[in-house]
Amino acid sequence: MSEKLVRLKEILGEVSDLTHAAAVLEWDQNVGMPAGGAEARGQQLSTLAKIAQEKSTSDELGRLLEDLQKEYPEGESEESAMIRVASRNYEKARRVPAEFVAERALVTTQAFEAWVVAKKKSDFSVFHPHLEKIVELVRRYITFFPPADHPYDVLLDDYERGLKTAEVKSIFQDLRLKQVELIRRIGSVGQVRDDFLHAKYNEQKLWKFGERIIGKFGYDWNRGRQDQAPHPFETSFSVNDVRITNRFEADHPMATLFGAMHEAGHAMYEQGINPSYERTPLEGGASLAVHESQSRLWENLVGRSMPFWEHFYPELKKTFPAQLDGITLKSFYKAINKVEPSLIRVNADEATYNLHVMLRLELEISMVEGAVAVRDLPQMWNEKMREYLGVIPPNDAKGVLQDVHWSGGSIGYFSTYALGNLISAQWAEAIRKDIRDLDDRISKGKFDDLLGWLRGKIHVHGKRYEPQALVQKVTGAKIDAGPFMSYLEDKFGGIYGL
Amino acid sequence: MSEKLVRLKEILGEVSDLTHAAAVLEWDQNVGMPAGGAEARGQQLSTLAKIAQEKSTSDELGRLLEDLQKEYPEGESEESAMIRVASRNYEKARRVPAEFVAERALVTTQAFEAWVVAKKKSDFSVFHPHLEKIVELVRRYITFFPPADHPYDVLLDDYERGLKTAEVKSIFQDLRLKQVELIRRIGSVGQVRDDFLHAKYNEQKLWKFGERIIGKFGYDWNRGRQDQAPHPFETSFSVNDVRITNRFEADHPMATLFGAMHEAGHAMYEQGINPSYERTPLEGGASLAVHESQSRLWENLVGRSMPFWEHFYPELKKTFPAQLDGITLKSFYKAINKVEPSLIRVNADEATYNLHVMLRLELEISMVEGAVAVRDLPQMWNEKMREYLGVIPPNDAKGVLQDVHWSGGSIGYFSTYALGNLISAQWAEAIRKDIRDLDDRISKGKFDDLLGWLRGKIHVHGKRYEPQALVQKVTGAKIDAGPFMSYLEDKFGGIYGL
Repeated sequence: MSEKLVRLKEILGEVSDLTHAAAVLEWDQNVGMPAGGAEARGQQLSTLAKIAQEKSTSDELGRLLEDLQKEYPEGESEESAMIRVASRNYEKARRVPAEFVAERALVTTQAFEAWVVAKKKSDFSVFHPHLEKIVELVRRYITFFPPADHPYDVLLDDYERGLKTAEVKSIFQDLRLKQVELIRRIGSVGQVRDDFLHAKYNEQKLWKFGERIIGKFGYDWNRGRQDQAPHPFETSFSVNDVRITNRFEADHPMATLFGAMHEAGHAMYEQGINPSYERTPLEGGASLAVHESQSRLWENLVGRSMPFWEHFYPELKKTFPAQLDGITLKSFYKAINKVEPSLIRVNADEATYNLHVMLRLELEISMVEGAVAVRDLPQMWNEKMREYLGVIPPNDAKGVLQDVHWSGGSIGYFSTYALGNLISAQWAEAIRKDIRDLDDRISKGKFDDLLGWLRGKIHVHGKRYEPQALVQKVTGAKIDAGPFMSYLEDKFGGIYGL
Repeated sequence: MSEKLVRLKEILGEVSDLTHAAAVLEWDQNVGMPAGGAEARGQQLSTLAKIAQEKSTSDELGRLLEDLQKEYPEGESEESAMIRVASRNYEKARRVPAEFVAERALVTTQAFEAWVVAKKKSDFSVFHPHLEKIVELVRRYITFFPPADHPYDVLLDDYERGLKTAEVKSIFQDLRLKQVELIRRIGSVGQVRDDFLHAKYNEQKLWKFGERIIGKFGYDWNRGRQDQAPHPFETSFSVNDVRITNRFEADHPMATLFGAMHEAGHAMYEQGINPSYERTPLEGGASLAVHESQSRLWENLVGRSMPFWEHFYPELKKTFPAQLDGITLKSFYKAINKVEPSLIRVNADEATYNLHVMLRLELEISMVEGAVAVRDLPQMWNEKMREYLGVIPPNDAKGVLQDVHWSGGSIGYFSTYALGNLISAQWAEAIRKDIRDLDDRISKGKFDDLLGWLRGKIHVHGKRYEPQALVQKVTGAKIDAGPFMSYLEDKFGGIYGL
């Protein structure tokens, strides 16, 4: 290895260490930090971020990358992939002035606090001036980059590199009409029964049941743990320390099981990345959408499938005999797949979920274009909810204020959720070609071939390939809504007898 | 505030943030990190330490301190105290070459691993070559500093700044003879009964009981938490986030209660430091010995006293009616204060504890002087054990290999444990002058005056005063073994009817 490459890896390794250290601090903040610790923790995180930023934008790093790009020209090798990703990160980071980063940190801290109050009071006017500042910041941010086909491309690229606004719009356009139509058809027939899912379930038992499931999936407990937190999330400190959090909500007890499967899907991805990418820019998942394709695959395509419950339902029934008394496997399967247009994205079922995302994407694009004033958002939100889902939020807390993302300045993020759904169905089609008896294996509680396939085709590569190139490489196609829509038609056609 | 002082505080604040971030990572490592995470965690800690070291020894920091020393000459103000402490830290850090720091990290990492094996196998020869390297490193370390009265002074100063080898020796010399004599007298009369302390106690209930006690002491749960770890310790991430760990051992169930009191003593100290010292070199306790004086005061002078159990024993008996059936308060009090020369320092009682420390101090001084070869340590250890305590370790695991400190390069640390005991008795004498009805208050479960006294006289000052100056300021005397010896004579004279 050239001396310059060694030095490059040293610098990037330190940046990775700082980022992982910050992740530990954030994990602790969510999992167990005493209330008093918040202020100091904010300060510590800010210092770690500042030092990582300095190291990520140093002149020395720029010179090294410039020289190394010549030494390792664009190609298939791991070194050139690493230098390519590092160079892009560097170029992007250098374009954003330090004062802007500091200003954004300040604005979003205040905006987050305002959002918490606004949501609690269900009063958009509390959040309104902060969101205006954020939109202004985001539009300013875009100006730091070369002109794109669409200004929103710049934002998308931060979450899903290489993806264009026009592409997402085109993928979603047709899908939206089809999903709306499917929901309409489902709404025209009788609803399934799911009252038994809302009985009283023992928290501890559900928690343990979820842990058994994800252990069988292949989540490696020697390199992970599950803790309680207000919101479920996955976080990695190393390929060998990938943790998940979960919660129990008495109103939605089963969410504890599906939350565990979802986060374990993310976590198994991280646990499966090539260990030699540790402390390099190739560590971590390829993109947010690819990440979400893993969590949704395990949560929905596996965890809400009939073969899966053929294996696990007898055990669940034994664990909760009173709650599931007289409930057949088929009734249970239908209940956990109930489709019902509702107000809150995070609780949405598979058939309606993407529509929540599309609504947000359209509003974001309008904000960035300046085509909509922030004060008009609540009304536009409600109109689109009626149009896509046929429901109208009774208040802004259950409408435009429901998600935290905008308060943190994250504009451009949402579409990765829906893209993850689409890609998960694309993987599933490819998997079924290679593992013909997949359903049979799942119904026997065997997941090693499935995980092995995902590991070898997707996980191991980390960030080595661009997300869209990875989809193309594995499935032979671009990101495409077709497989997902077929999956929905097939699954819910069966459940609702359409 | 001058511009230079602002900049100084900025740099030192970042160093503090890095140190606290590392403390969070270490806490996690002890409390919950999955086994797989160890290697990456070591790397992350090493990067944080390296950056903190760079920032602590930068030329810019040196120039700032030089200028500011002139601007704020030695005096009573907080600024001059901060600059004094910062300057001393800087000067010490600059004397130690970076390569030496790296070499020491490597040697101690290997030595620690060897010590774990050696202790497990009870085979000193496994640890022997590593300890030789450590002694060599320590002697080299001493040469980086100006010649002192005794080379060991340089090491002592790292743990108990300003303290001289001659002083410690002189304090311990007389004390040792008196403690040995006390133990001899105790050994010549009948032993107290303590079999009921080794019955089967419910872990959960003991844990909760300990939490109730330290909550009553004044440990602030909004700024802290207690977790399980292999060894009890206290760690601070901020004055507002001070955590303790504890453990349950079926063989010594009561250790869970006394461990909680001990660590809470450390933690209340940290929680009581002037918040304006946060992120400056004045944060944290004055010294290790002063810190230990707090933990020992709460654990022993309060927690093993008759008035304390007058209040808590009825509740303990209600919690464990079977185990304590027929055991009077007096019997219980005697049992938890049983004196019995034994092999292991951390399990030693109040009357014998210091002798374990003195033995280690004498061996360390001999090693530093080159007066003893490492290979002769086990034999010397055993001889001194016989001389001071009348017991001989059956093997090295229960002898020279029992403590972790030397494997980490910590030579110079041990005496602070014994000094903490001495100082705790000095505080107690001073407290009794100000709070005449202290015992009466304790017997009513009231600790607010006691904690208030410690807060105002000791805690709030952080590192503002030198440790020995603080003892002098509060008690009017130097560190002195007199009060501690009187306390022992009085307490154990009573218990054993001497």
